[in-house]
Amino acid sequence: MLRFEVVLVEPKFGGNIGAVARVMMNFDVSSLVVVSPQVSLDGDECRERAVHAQKILDSARVVTSFQKGIIGSDFVVGTSSIVSGSDRRHLRKAMSLLEFTGKIYDVSGCVSLVFGREDYGLLNQEIEQCDILLQIPTSPHYPSLNLSHAVGVVLYSLFQPKYTKEPVRRVARVEKDILSHYLSLLLDNIRYPDYKKEKTIMLMKRILGRAMVSQLEYHTFMGVLRGAVEKLQQEHDPSNSR
Amino acid sequence: MLRFEVVLVEPKFGGNIGAVARVMMNFDVSSLVVVSPQVSLDGDECRERAVHAQKILDSARVVTSFQKGIIGSDFVVGTSSIVSGSDRRHLRKAMSLLEFTGKIYDVSGCVSLVFGREDYGLLNQEIEQCDILLQIPTSPHYPSLNLSHAVGVVLYSLFQPKYTKEPVRRVARVEKDILSHYLSLLLDNIRYPDYKKEKTIMLMKRILGRAMVSQLEYHTFMGVLRGAVEKLQQEHDPSNSR
Repeated sequence: MLRFEVVLVEPKFGGNIGAVARVMMNFDVSSLVVVSPQVSLDGDECRERAVHAQKILDSARVVTSFQKGIIGSDFVVGTSSIVSGSDRRHLRKAMSLLEFTGKIYDVSGCVSLVFGREDYGLLNQEIEQCDILLQIPTSPHYPSLNLSHAVGVVLYSLFQPKYTKEPVRRVARVEKDILSHYLSLLLDNIRYPDYKKEKTIMLMKRILGRAMVSQLEYHTFMGVLRGAVEKLQQEHDPSNSR
Repeated sequence: MLRFEVVLVEPKFGGNIGAVARVMMNFDVSSLVVVSPQVSLDGDECRERAVHAQKILDSARVVTSFQKGIIGSDFVVGTSSIVSGSDRRHLRKAMSLLEFTGKIYDVSGCVSLVFGREDYGLLNQEIEQCDILLQIPTSPHYPSLNLSHAVGVVLYSLFQPKYTKEPVRRVARVEKDILSHYLSLLLDNIRYPDYKKEKTIMLMKRILGRAMVSQLEYHTFMGVLRGAVEKLQQEHDPSNSR
């Protein structure tokens, strides 16, 4: 089953948090996580703007770090209305909301939709922890959407399609960690420059994230990767009889 | 030429009007008409919520009746998140936002997008003056969107088809062939079962194809792959001094 969770990172304004709760309820999403809010979720503005969505605020999970906010999530989706055109900035590479909406209903599990601060959005180190970066197309003259508008547009887009296809289970968090582990071993074994290692692992994970690989594809990929690592380790093992 | 105009009918809250102005600018629509606003467009809340969209408020046309609000319009579109099952007259005119977006770009002229009051929406006699009634799909449990969210969702939907992603040069055929070649060498070197080879290469190419990898991603991926192949071949080379 596919389940969406809205994660707000360090929101500053109670009104925005309340408006987010309301629009979540408008589009049938009930699970809200707030990372280090700068205001109380019980403030008047927050409660007033939520109107009939008080329950979403009551049951919101308030956490103290980004990591805690995405715990238990199978697929972490950062959001942005600005994406750098430069190819080098792969950090900021994104999938459009339309494309994402077309693909996500093949997935099952918990999908975290992460929205950054009202002023600074998401930090690079937060985007690095996302499987993909979702881009909401906006005017280049004024790309910055109000926080609750960004949430509204994304949730509307996801509410819109009526897919009845049987969901295929996609790769879960723990499997992604195994992938990183073997990738890291491979890079060590081929003497890959240390300073490039982390970036390369992230880039590879992002490619697989964007492709939304199936279980079969994951296991095939891992088979090759593990095969290469084991072979390389064998060759280096002094107890090897050759 | 197609031109959109946003018409708000008797809005009660300045914050909503300001938020509408902002989201209009986010989606490149600049023409705002306000029919009998219950508050001033110069109020603090209105101005604050508009942020960088002050010009839209400054140039807004404030009128005293619905008729005056749609003067000069070639096509009048009422909006609603609820379409009453009992009112057969309006059902005839109802079109979903997705369907509308697919059709409206064939039209030229001024299209008025009309949004009703925060509490009562549009009155029947107003809907009767609309050419169509646009329905925004929302949860039956809480269908009522905040006014600026309704505007945001409609404008996002209309902005979407105009949006073309900056083209990033993707990986060409010859580069894919080089990838297959090295992948094949890797599989040979790790004694990958022959009968699975072809399928695995195809699957890997498909993953990369689906992810639409950029030049940078391709070269990083190839760097790792080539590194692994070269290391494995070195180990097997009898002329190797070790």
